[in-house]
Parts: sequence; C-alpha cells; structure tokens
Amino acid sequence: MIVDCAEYDQGARRPGRASLSDLGQRERGDGRFVWLGLFEPTAEEFSEVMDALGLHPLASEDAVEAHQRPKLEIYDGTLFLVLKTARYDDPTETVEFGELLIFVGADFIVVVRHGAASALAEVRAELEADPERLALGPAAVLHGILDRVVDDYAPVMAGIDDDIGEVEAAVFSDTPTNPVERIYKLKREVLGVHRALGPLVDPLHRLSSQPLPTVPPAVRSYFRDVEDHLVRVTEQNETNRDLLTSVLEANLTRVSVRQNEDMRKISAWVAMAAVPTLVAGVYGMNFDHMPELDWRFGYPAVLAAMAVICLTLFRYFRRSGWI
Amino acid sequence: MIVDCAEYDQGARRPGRASLSDLGQRERGDGRFVWLGLFEPTAEEFSEVMDALGLHPLASEDAVEAHQRPKLEIYDGTLFLVLKTARYDDPTETVEFGELLIFVGADFIVVVRHGAASALAEVRAELEADPERLALGPAAVLHGILDRVVDDYAPVMAGIDDDIGEVEAAVFSDTPTNPVERIYKLKREVLGVHRALGPLVDPLHRLSSQPLPTVPPAVRSYFRDVEDHLVRVTEQNETNRDLLTSVLEANLTRVSVRQNEDMRKISAWVAMAAVPTLVAGVYGMNFDHMPELDWRFGYPAVLAAMAVICLTLFRYFRRSGWI
Amino acid sequence: MIVDCAEYDQGARRPGRASLSDLGQRERGDGRFVWLGLFEPTAEEFSEVMDALGLHPLASEDAVEAHQRPKLEIYDGTLFLVLKTARYDDPTETVEFGELLIFVGADFIVVVRHGAASALAEVRAELEADPERLALGPAAVLHGILDRVVDDYAPVMAGIDDDIGEVEAAVFSDTPTNPVERIYKLKREVLGVHRALGPLVDPLHRLSSQPLPTVPPAVRSYFRDVEDHLVRVTEQNETNRDLLTSVLEANLTRVSVRQNEDMRKISAWVAMAAVPTLVAGVYGMNFDHMPELDWRFGYPAVLAAMAVICLTLFRYFRRSGWI
Amino acid sequence: MIVDCAEYDQGARRPGRASLSDLGQRERGDGRFVWLGLFEPTAEEFSEVMDALGLHPLASEDAVEAHQRPKLEIYDGTLFLVLKTARYDDPTETVEFGELLIFVGADFIVVVRHGAASALAEVRAELEADPERLALGPAAVLHGILDRVVDDYAPVMAGIDDDIGEVEAAVFSDTPTNPVERIYKLKREVLGVHRALGPLVDPLHRLSSQPLPTVPPAVRSYFRDVEDHLVRVTEQNETNRDLLTSVLEANLTRVSVRQNEDMRKISAWVAMAAVPTLVAGVYGMNFDHMPELDWRFGYPAVLAAMAVICLTLFRYFRRSGWI
Amino acid sequence: MIVDCAEYDQGARRPGRASLSDLGQRERGDGRFVWLGLFEPTAEEFSEVMDALGLHPLASEDAVEAHQRPKLEIYDGTLFLVLKTARYDDPTETVEFGELLIFVGADFIVVVRHGAASALAEVRAELEADPERLALGPAAVLHGILDRVVDDYAPVMAGIDDDIGEVEAAVFSDTPTNPVERIYKLKREVLGVHRALGPLVDPLHRLSSQPLPTVPPAVRSYFRDVEDHLVRVTEQNETNRDLLTSVLEANLTRVSVRQNEDMRKISAWVAMAAVPTLVAGVYGMNFDHMPELDWRFGYPAVLAAMAVICLTLFRYFRRSGWI
Ligand SMILES: [Mg+2]
Ligand SMILES: [Mg+2]
Ligand SMILES: [Mg+2]
Ligand SMILES: [Mg+2]
Ligand SMILES: [Mg+2]
Ligand SMILES: [Mg+2]
Ligand SMILES: [Mg+2]
Ligand SMILES: [Mg+2]
Ligand SMILES: [Mg+2]
Ligand SMILES: [Mg+2]
Ligand SMILES: [Mg+2]
Ligand SMILES: [Mg+2]
Ligand SMILES: [Mg+2]
Ligand SMILES: [Mg+2]
Ligand SMILES: [Mg+2]
Ligand SMILES: [Mg+2]
Ligand SMILES: [Mg+2]
Ligand SMILES: [Mg+2]
Ligand SMILES: [Mg+2]
Ligand SMILES: [Mg+2]
Ligand SMILES: [Mg+2]
Ligand SMILES: [Mg+2]
Ligand SMILES: [Mg+2]
Ligand SMILES: [Mg+2]
Ligand SMILES: [Mg+2]
Ligand SMILES: [Mg+2]
Ligand SMILES: [Mg+2]
Ligand SMILES: [Mg+2]
Ligand SMILES: [Mg+2]
Ligand SMILES: [Mg+2]
Ligand SMILES: [Mg+2]
Repeated sequence: MIVDCAEYDQGARRPGRASLSDLGQRERGDGRFVWLGLFEPTAEEFSEVMDALGLHPLASEDAVEAHQRPKLEIYDGTLFLVLKTARYDDPTETVEFGELLIFVGADFIVVVRHGAASALAEVRAELEADPERLALGPAAVLHGILDRVVDDYAPVMAGIDDDIGEVEAAVFSDTPTNPVERIYKLKREVLGVHRALGPLVDPLHRLSSQPLPTVPPAVRSYFRDVEDHLVRVTEQNETNRDLLTSVLEANLTRVSVRQNEDMRKISAWVAMAAVPTLVAGVYGMNFDHMPELDWRFGYPAVLAAMAVICLTLFRYFRRSGWI
Repeated sequence: MIVDCAEYDQGARRPGRASLSDLGQRERGDGRFVWLGLFEPTAEEFSEVMDALGLHPLASEDAVEAHQRPKLEIYDGTLFLVLKTARYDDPTETVEFGELLIFVGADFIVVVRHGAASALAEVRAELEADPERLALGPAAVLHGILDRVVDDYAPVMAGIDDDIGEVEAAVFSDTPTNPVERIYKLKREVLGVHRALGPLVDPLHRLSSQPLPTVPPAVRSYFRDVEDHLVRVTEQNETNRDLLTSVLEANLTRVSVRQNEDMRKISAWVAMAAVPTLVAGVYGMNFDHMPELDWRFGYPAVLAAMAVICLTLFRYFRRSGWI
Repeated sequence: MIVDCAEYDQGARRPGRASLSDLGQRERGDGRFVWLGLFEPTAEEFSEVMDALGLHPLASEDAVEAHQRPKLEIYDGTLFLVLKTARYDDPTETVEFGELLIFVGADFIVVVRHGAASALAEVRAELEADPERLALGPAAVLHGILDRVVDDYAPVMAGIDDDIGEVEAAVFSDTPTNPVERIYKLKREVLGVHRALGPLVDPLHRLSSQPLPTVPPAVRSYFRDVEDHLVRVTEQNETNRDLLTSVLEANLTRVSVRQNEDMRKISAWVAMAAVPTLVAGVYGMNFDHMPELDWRFGYPAVLAAMAVICLTLFRYFRRSGWI
Repeated sequence: MIVDCAEYDQGARRPGRASLSDLGQRERGDGRFVWLGLFEPTAEEFSEVMDALGLHPLASEDAVEAHQRPKLEIYDGTLFLVLKTARYDDPTETVEFGELLIFVGADFIVVVRHGAASALAEVRAELEADPERLALGPAAVLHGILDRVVDDYAPVMAGIDDDIGEVEAAVFSDTPTNPVERIYKLKREVLGVHRALGPLVDPLHRLSSQPLPTVPPAVRSYFRDVEDHLVRVTEQNETNRDLLTSVLEANLTRVSVRQNEDMRKISAWVAMAAVPTLVAGVYGMNFDHMPELDWRFGYPAVLAAMAVICLTLFRYFRRSGWI
Repeated sequence: MIVDCAEYDQGARRPGRASLSDLGQRERGDGRFVWLGLFEPTAEEFSEVMDALGLHPLASEDAVEAHQRPKLEIYDGTLFLVLKTARYDDPTETVEFGELLIFVGADFIVVVRHGAASALAEVRAELEADPERLALGPAAVLHGILDRVVDDYAPVMAGIDDDIGEVEAAVFSDTPTNPVERIYKLKREVLGVHRALGPLVDPLHRLSSQPLPTVPPAVRSYFRDVEDHLVRVTEQNETNRDLLTSVLEANLTRVSVRQNEDMRKISAWVAMAAVPTLVAGVYGMNFDHMPELDWRFGYPAVLAAMAVICLTLFRYFRRSGWI
C-alpha cells in the first residue's frame, strides 16, 4: 500500500502526489528527489517500484518479506537499511517491534514499513516545514527517520526501567510475593530488545564515520548524534539484563527466607504445644501412687505450670525472632 | 555412492549422466561445468574423483571421513567448504546434523553428503529450471545449496523456540511439574547448534566480502543474503541459550516455592491437630479434683471448644495463605 | 547561568569578567583565550554562546539537554567532550552523577555543568595560581578539569569498597542478618558507575595518544596520567561487580544454613518431647493388668526414666551440634 | 636420555645411530637432516646438544625444566615449539599431561619429551616408511608429531564426553545419588584441558598461515589440517565446560527436589498419625458424662472411624503425589 | 631512603657508592651506567634524583605516591615501568602486594620500591657476579628485576592452589563443615591478583616484541621468557577464579544436602515415636467395652506390638538411607 509519494525540489514539496510511473524518468537534476512511503507492499506492488528505480532483487525480496535483522547494504550506489521500530506495551510488559526497510538513492528514498512503526507522517511534516534541511536530499530524510525511530526507543527503555523498579520493590517488600515469572518475562523482553537494537549500532557507525554514496559529509555528524543515542539505549539495556539476573537471584534468597520463616513459626507453635501435652500425658498415667493427683489444687497448679512453660517458650521464641 | 552427475553448458543440462571418466578431460571451455553429487563415498570411490579433478589429498581425506567443523579452504584455486545440515526431531527434541563437503573449481562442483542432509535434489531441480542463474557457473550452484541449507536451519530454530515456550509454560504453570531434565537437554541441543552453525559465519563472510577464485563478483551479494540469514539464526540461538539459563534458575525458584508450600500446608494441619490433642490430654489427667469433669455438659463444651480452636486456626492459616 | 567568564593572556587573568559579547571578537592572538563556565543554561542563554563561538548546533543541543553518555567529538577544529561527575552519598549508599559538557577551541574553553559537579572553582583558582601551566592554553584547562573529576571518582570507589566490606562482615557474622537488599542495591550502583565511567576511557585514550586539534603534544602525557587513574577506577569497579555477585551467592548459602540450623534446633526439641510423651501414653493405658502401676515407686521411677531419656537425647543432639 | 638419533638423506635413514658429536659438523647439504629424540634430559646432557646445534640458552633452559605453556618461538632461524600431550585415565577420570619441546632447524629436529607422551616411536616408523614425505625435511617430521599429538587429544575428549554422559544419567535417574563431587572434578579436568590445549591454537595458526623459517610452503596446508582438528577439540571442550556448569545447577534442583519429597513423605505419615491420636485423646478424657463410652460398640466404631480417617488422608496424599 | 647506588663500567662495579650528585654529570660514555635503588623516597629525596636525571614530573609524582596500576611509559627516551610484587601469607590466606617503579635511561636505572618487595639485593648480587650480562647495560638490570619479580609470583599461585585444594577437600569431606567464608575470601584474593598482575602482560609484551629506547635487541627474547611465565601465572589465576565459582556452588549443594539429611533423620525418629504414641492413646481411651483391656497379657502384647512397629519402621528408614 502506498502511504505517500511526493517529489521535492530544492527542499520544497511539488504539489500533489507523484505517481509511480514518474519514478523511472530519472531526469531529475540536482536538488530534486522522490520520497515514497509504502506499508507492507505485496510482491506485485513492489516489483513495479523495483523496476522503476533499478533496486536489487535481493533487497527487494527483503522489503516484501521483512523479518530481517538490522543491516546496511550498498548495492551499486544505493543504500539499503533495515531497522526495527519498538513500542512498549506497559499492561502486558511486552515490547512490540515493527520493521523499516529503506532504500536511499541519489534522487529517491523509498521507505517500506512493516508492523507498528514510528510516526513517519510526523517526520515528513517536520521535514517539509524545514526546506533547508530537506534540500540536503534523501540522506536528510534518512536522518530524520532514524532520529525519530531511535528517539522512540527511549520510552521503551523507560517502561522497562519502570517495571524493573516495580519488580525490585516487590522482591524487597515485606509482603510475601514471588515475582519470578514477571522477572523472567522482563528478561525475555530485554533479550528481545538486545537482538533488535544491537545490530543497528554498526550500520549507524558506518553512516556516521565512513564516506558512503548518497550521504553528503555535512549529514554525517547528524548520524553520529543518532548513534550516540542508540549506544546509550543499548548500554542501558545491558545494565537491565544484568540487573534482572541479580534480581532473580535476590528473589530466590528472599523467597527462601520468607518460607523458612513461615516454617519456623509453625514449628515453634508446635513445639509450644508439645511440652504441656507431655505434662498432661504424665498426669494421665494410671499409677496407683501419684501424690499430686490427690492434692486439692493439683489441677490448677498444673494448668498454671503449663501456662508458665508456654509463656516462657513464647518469650524465648519471640526474642529469637522466630515468632 | 554417486547420486547424480551432470554436465551443464551455458546453464542447460546436457542429456544423460556424465561419467566419472569424463571428469578428467578438462577440455570444457567457458560456461561448461560438471556437478557431481556423492553420498558417503568410500575412500576408493573418492580417490577416482580426486585424481580426475586434482583435488588436494587432505581435503579428500576430510570428504571421506567427514566429522569436520565448518570451514572454507582454498587449495590451488579450488574452494573447499564444509558445513553442517540440521533437522529438528520434535518428539525427542534433538537436532540431527548431517554434513556437506563441497569442492568448487572453475568447471566443476563436487558435493559430498554425509548423514541426513537438506533436499539437494530439489536444489538441482530449481536451478535446472533457471538456466540464467545456472549459467553463472559452479558458484551459483554453491549459493543455491548454501541458501537451502541455511533456510533449513529456520525450522530447527522454530522447533527449539516452540519447546522453550512449552518449557516456560510448564515452569510457570500451577501444576507441580519439574521440567529440569527437559530444560537441560534443550540447553545441550542449543550448545550443539552453536558448535555446528557458529563456525560457518566466517566462511560465509569471506564468500560475501572477499574476492575468491571461482566466485564471480555478481554472486557475492547473494552470499551476503545467506550470511544475513545465518547470523540471524545464530543470534536467536544465543538468545535461547541465555533464556534456558534463566529458565533453569526460575524453575529452581518455582520448584522450591511449590515444595515449601506443600510442607507448610502439612505442618499447618499438624499444628491444627496439636492444640485439641493438648486439650484432650488435659482432660485425660487423673486429678481427683477437676471440677469440669463433673459438669453435665463438660464433654460437649470441650468438644465445641476444640472445634472453635481448630476453626480459628484454620481461618488464620487460610488468611495467611498457608492452607 | 553564567558562573564565571574570564580572558587569559599568557596565563594571566585579565581583570574583570569578560562579557559574552566579547566572545565573538575573535581577534585574540597567541596565548590569549577565554574560559567560560555555565550552569544548566537555557537554550536561549546558550544560543548566544553558540553563535558567538560558532559551535555546532548538535553539540549545543547536547549542552542544553545533557543526559549524554561520555564521548569526545570533533566539529571543525573544536573538541566537544562529555563526561560524568560522581559523588557518593554514604547514608543512602547511592552514587549521584552530574554532567560536564566542554567545548575546547583554539582560543576558548566553554564548560557547561549539569547537576552536582566537582569543585570547578577550585580548579580555576589552582590554575590561575600557576600561570605557566595556564599559558599552555585551553588544553591545560581541560586537563585541570579532567584531573579533578577523575580524582573525585576515587572517594566514590572508596565509599563503595567500604560498604562492600560492611556487607561482607554482615554476611559472615554470626548474628542472623540477611543483607540481600543491600547487596543488590550496591550492585545496582556499581552497574551505574560502570555505565557512567566506562565510556570515558576511550576519549581519554584519544586525548593522550592521538594528535588532536587544540591539544599541544606537551599536554598529551598529562592526559595519559588521568587515563591511568581512570582505568584503575574502572578495574576496581569491575572487581566490585564480581565480588558482589559472589557475596550474593555466599549470602544465600549463609542464610540457608542459618535457617536450617534453627529448624533443626526446634525439631530436636520436639523430638526430645516426643519420647517421654510416648512413655506417659503407655502408662496412661487402661489395661487391667499393668504391674508397674501398682508399684510403690513406679511413678517416680518413670519420671526418672523420662528425665534420663531426655538428657541422653540432649547430650546426643548437643554432640551432633544440633542444639 | 637419548631415545633415538638418526640422520636422514633424501628421506632415507642412514644406517645406525648418529652420534651427538656429529651434530656440530654442519656440513650436511640439501635433503640431509638429523632427528634427535630425548627423554627428560639433564642440563648436562642437553648442554652438549645446545652447543652442537647453537640453540638459544633460554629455549634450552625451557627444554630441561619443562612446565612451559604451549608456544612457538623463533630464535635466529630455529623454531622452538612447546606443546602438551594428553591421556585420559578413565578410572580416576583425570587427564594426564606430558610435554614436548621441539627445536626445528634447517637440518635438524630435536624432540625433548617430558612425562607420558604420545607414541613418537610410531611416528618415526610411519615416516621412515614414507621417504617421500620425509624428504620434505624437518618440517615434515614436525607435522607428523603434531598430527599424532593432536589426534591423541580425541580419545581424551571422548573419555570426558562419556563421563559427562554418565553424570547426566546419574543426575536425571530416579535413584537418589548426588554426583556433585564428580561433576566438580570433571569441571576441574576440563579447565585443565583448556589451559593445556588453548594456547596451542595460535602457534598452529602461525605454522599454517605465515611464512616461517624451515617450513616449506607445501607443508603449510598440512598444518592447517592439524589446526582444524585442534580447534574442534577446543570447541568441544568449551561446550563441555558449559554443560558441566548447567549440570551442576540441574543437580542442585534434582537433589533439593528429591530431599523435599522425602521430607514431605515423612511429614504426611506424621500427619496421618496425628488425627487418630487426637481422637484417642478425646476418648481418653475423664468426663463423667461421655455417652459414647457406654455404647456397646463405641470402641470398634471409633477404631473404624480412625481407620477411615487414615485411609481418606492416605488417598488424598497419594492423589497429591505426596506419598 | 637510598638503598644502594653504584656505577658500573663494562659490567664491573666501580668501588664504593656513587653519590647522587654524580648522577647529573652525564659524561659517562659507552658501557657505563648508574644503578640507584630507593625505598619509599619522600618527595624531597626524589626531586633531587629527578632533577639530576631529567625525569618527567608526572612519573616522578607516581614514584613518590605509588598505588599505580602496572604500566610502561616512555618519556623522551626514558622508560618508566610500574609493577606489583606479591607475597602469599599462608596463615591468613592473603596476598600482600608491594610496588616497584623503575626508570630506565641510556646510562642509568632507578628502582623505587614501595612496601614488601622481592629480594632486589639478591638480584644485584647475581648480576654483579655475571659482568658479561651486566655489560648489556640498564636493560639487563631491568630484565633481572622483572625475572625475579615474576618468578616470585609462582609461590603465590602455589599457595593459592594449595588452599583451593584444602577447600575442595573440606567441601567434599564427610565432616559437616561449611567453608563458604574461606571460599569467598580466596576468591577476593584471586580477584586482587587479577588486578595486580593482569595489566603487566601488555608492558612485558611491548618489551619483548617492540623496539624500545634503551632496550638492545639481544635482550628482547629474555623479556619474552619473562612474559611467558607471567602469562602462565595469569592463566592459572583465571582457572582458579573459575574453580572458586564452581566450588562455591558445589558447597551450596553439599551444605544443603547435609542439612536436609539431618532434618530427615530427626523427622524419621519423630515418626517412629508417633505410631506407638497413637497405640498408647487408643488403649488409654475410657470405653466401657474394650475387651483387650481385660486380657491377661494385653499389656505385654501391646508393648510387643509397639516394639515390632518401631523396629519395622526403623528397618524401613535404614533401608531408605534416612537414618
Ligand atoms: Mg535523537
Ligand atoms: Mg536530537
Ligand atoms: Mg510499568
Ligand atoms: Mg507494569
Ligand atoms: Mg545529541
Ligand atoms: Mg535464504
Ligand atoms: Mg532468499
Ligand atoms: Mg515441540
Ligand atoms: Mg515437544
Ligand atoms: Mg534476504
Ligand atoms: Mg546461578
Ligand atoms: Mg552506609
Ligand atoms: Mg589525578
Ligand atoms: Mg559506607
Ligand atoms: Mg556504610
Ligand atoms: Mg600518575
Ligand atoms: Mg596526579
Ligand atoms: Mg544460585
Ligand atoms: Mg590429525
Ligand atoms: Mg589426518
Ligand atoms: Mg568413563
Ligand atoms: Mg567413568
Ligand atoms: Mg582433516
Ligand atoms: Mg543457584
Ligand atoms: Mg531448602
Ligand atoms: Mg623467570
Ligand atoms: Mg595454605
Ligand atoms: Mg591454609
Ligand atoms: Mg623460559
Ligand atoms: Mg628463567
Ligand atoms: Mg549461580
């Protein structure tokens, strides 16, 4: 599905939609380029684009099939970049990934979106409002998109950080919870983020440090800015991974302590019942000669003795922190 | 055992089987090559091939013995590639590996298969249906085989992912299972995959980025496509390895919690029996003066008291989540 | 907010404050430079500086927003360095980070501070007292600041070391404590330090080993001295990370041992009560013919037997170390 | 002790033993070299060799003292290679290491053996039976020895693999064993293998890929074959290391589960005794008015009730899997 | 404090002590150099040396302050090497570190020692007894010192190995010990050794493989010999680190098994008492019609039954390995 298709001349949008059939004209001179946005195109839809712009069949296959790992490739002067978009769904504590596959030529940029992606329409609007930046050509568009996608990783990390904070609170709280499943699922998400974002560092580094076709030197330090933000995000993710490993171990300690405390408490109560039971057993014996049995206050005295024993044990257990 | 042996001319199969004795002719000009497929050849069978094509004795030894790690070697203009094929046997949750040992010369490709391999006959059929691709020579055949083998890794990963999902469900379910053996065996498989697939990344990288004999530049980006898929598979495998480590730890927590719950439950019931037992012991004492014993409703009153005590304890334990 | 702004000529401070409007004059010859210190400037405040000195907009954006990871960038002959300052708050056992963003040109140095930073006023005073060093230009100022910031990491490490020592003492003491939360929180801080300090090693290495604009060779070995100290701090931090992992595991062992000892103790007491209870039960049976019941000293004999049994058990348990 | 010393001319052994005093003659032309084998020589014995062949004193010191890590050094045109031989002692499940220290010059090879080594006499016999290979000079001898030593690592790995298999079977069997000590000792062996074999990879890589004195290019791919085998062994060792870590954790889970099952079983039986004990206590009370006591079939009824209670509990516990 | 100061000419010590004031003369020709040994000099003492020899102020600061990490620096033709000396204190199982800071110029070597160091006086004596070696100049002295310091690491490793052996024996012995604290403290020492020795590998590698001022090529292979020994020590240390991690985990398993055995034993005894208690309770009931009570041998029969029950349980528990 074509989302938008426009031609820009010296940074200004030419009125109306450019049609796919114009793409092949290839007569655009300096400062003119086409920006085509597609959403999950079929192989048929895309083959038209591919033919018009002379895209490499392998990259085109990827654009239609998606499910690629982030990468940057160069096919005869055309850059082909794959990256993941991410969104955090806080209620289920899962990260949803989309995919962008971008072709950048001297006079065109084709952006294929799969799944939930960042708000690319806003990027287009922002760039159209800044003709000077747009006049730098397709690389400026590429930067605009990358900057947005990487900025959109920040709320994902914030959401995960938040939930790790909640999990830590649960682990170290006094209420007997066992968030082991939640910890594990968060770790799973963190590993997913690692797999989706990690491989993008290298492409961004190449964009920001190597001379590449279609990327004017002036744009390079802009890519370095994006690279910075991405590296920060990936480092935070590594920290989270480490924290979740530790919190899993800390949780095991807490859970085991809490349960042993329960067992100890019950055992202490049983022990407190055992002694008076023994005393009662003694005076339940049927010996002929048990002088205490004949005493007038034998019974209350024994009851009192039982109470004293229990109380003494109770205070001892309390002092030991067992009850 | 010879599986198939054919000569191709400008991408078209020449009728009939080529015989081994033709191999040595070496009079093929541009665009002609032989594709020989062998299955677990004996040393005798293979020495004939080796002599006809002038293969290096060390590589030939490997081809007969198999059990090599994946590697790419170059012996005087001949590429020698070793790789593992993989198949997931879901009922036993084990990965079965086969081995391919491939010699690629300017005008021949020899494919030696050991164990269960990918469907190479299909690759041959597909390529024969695409003469243009086949006309690129032996390197195109090599790509066709590699693409298939690496594509066949995907169902292996899917099968393992699936089983990890089942294991996670078991660990976090409420029924008291202990899938520790299954987790461990999956980890063993994941380590096996790591060892079988990991060393192939470097040969594929060299095929996709370095000028190598017998590999025309036009084929190189096709190898990069295969490399991409392989790297994705190996990264997924690393994630699985990490997940299985975490799920083993999470399982320990769950198992220990579940068992402590059982113990606590039994202990709580024992504690509930201990108090009325004590009361009964008290009224079993043989003191002469125990006024309660003479009361008309002493017995039912004590029974009622016991019931109240038990009920109170029961409600307390229930509220604490112990029963 | 402007903290201080002065012009230096051959290492000597020119009287009074330099005004921002002077910055743009750019007529300073050899040995003259301006040192401008800012605290959390607004975008408006900073845009004036940026225009006067021709700073790159991306670096300027960072300077205003902060929350960057440490890095060194070069924009047309201007160095841009980001680094973290650190302070250990011992009562809460947390590390507080500030941020410095520094622009170094041929004739200026701009230092932007965010959050609690090291005592930069002292650095200025020390340098003004040493005109020879100051005469080396902005790079000498950069070194003075870096040296101070990195020296200020030492008390942070000392504080954490200290607290790890306390935690170790708690884990291996005989009093029943469980410092699992404290261990975990220290690990969290250590990971935070890793993230804040680790990325600074590379910029310092480049300052100390590569020819960079605005850094005269004579200053380079001074940066190596700072790099040394930084590497020592980061290695200590890695050791602490490892220690905390081990102490968490050791704590689990200790806690579990301590609790099992409690359980064993209670169980032993219960076992000691069980045997006399059984004896009492035996003599509470109502058989017609139980000769012991008629004995004159049956009752005291049984009591004595009970005492002997309990004492024997007690001595056995004590010898086994269970009580 | 001199094991054997022979001179070879064009691959053929010259009759008899060469004497040490011949070594220094240095008049051998092309295709003649001496192969000297020594077993744990004393410093005196070796100094004679050293002087005759002009070996470097440091290497000579190593040859006498042994206990070196594997390494390859070049002293003025002489290769000096140190490597470990390994043998698995299955009954004690330990790996025994020997050491070979080899000097390779243009016209000599000196092999010093310490401890139990591979069967070098067989290597000599094999090579003497293949004069063509031997005619390649000392490097061919070096290859023959390395090939044998590395091939001898395979049974070591097989033995360890085997024992890991036995340990896994023990961990996951239903009989209550705790092979923690065996797991740990195997891990110790695996770490020992890592230390003994790991450092040899680099020397073999240099032998197989760099031009080195005394190694003709034709021999280089033979060293690559040995390198392949060595890398396979070291990767297998890494896998084993990983497996033993996991099996240790899995064993902890199994042991803890098995013991909790025992505890639960005993507790369940105690609980089953507690309820009829309570009932007996109730009817042991001495109240005047307990109508059941007068019933004709009160006693058998109560006995039956006790049996029913026990049976019900028994079936409940059995259904819960506690007994 | 000056320990010794001597001038050497062609390897021979010139009579008497050289005075500090001679140092600055700088008229020594080929084959003459001064070897100055200092122990924890004050800033004042050292500034004299620094001025006389033209040492760099930063290195001089390090020499006085010490607490540096091992490193090698070159300041205008002067080598500056920092390294740690180590000594194992077996009773406390701690490693004590000292520090050497060495300046090597064309005609001088200055050795500053902090804390307990290796026996440098012996090194001097050995070298003075070997004038040929000493005639190689300051680099030969540097080698002599490094060789001694690194050789002195061996007993440290031996001591730690030993104590790990003792710890293993304790973990796997049948006596109920819990050496968790000792394991942890050994790990702490091993991490300390890692930090003190690890950074020295790179300086030694540079000394043994790069052309450096003041190091004649003939001495380089001697440094490689020292490097070998150092690498062996660091690898052994890594193995120990790994072993201690595993032994900590194995200890947890052993401790938990041993304690559960105790609990199981006590529980089994309690269970053995519970059944006869129940029987006694039954015959303590007050039913009018309990025929057994009237039997002549009811009482001994019940006692016998109790004994049989206990014995049966005892044999069952013994067979299960619970008692
Ligand atoms: Mg951004
Ligand atoms: Mg931005
Ligand atoms: Mg949340
Ligand atoms: Mg949430
Ligand atoms: Mg930025
Ligand atoms: Mg594919
Ligand atoms: Mg494909
Ligand atoms: Mg399945
Ligand atoms: Mg399945
Ligand atoms: Mg693809
Ligand atoms: Mg663990
Ligand atoms: Mg504190
Ligand atoms: Mg400093
Ligand atoms: Mg503190
Ligand atoms: Mg404190
Ligand atoms: Mg310093
Ligand atoms: Mg300093
Ligand atoms: Mg653990
Ligand atoms: Mg071999
Ligand atoms: Mg072989
Ligand atoms: Mg075996
Ligand atoms: Mg065995
Ligand atoms: Mg081979
Ligand atoms: Mg564990
Ligand atoms: Mg437990
Ligand atoms: Mg030495
Ligand atoms: Mg010792
Ligand atoms: Mg000791
Ligand atoms: Mg040596
Ligand atoms: Mg030596
Ligand atoms: Mg662990």
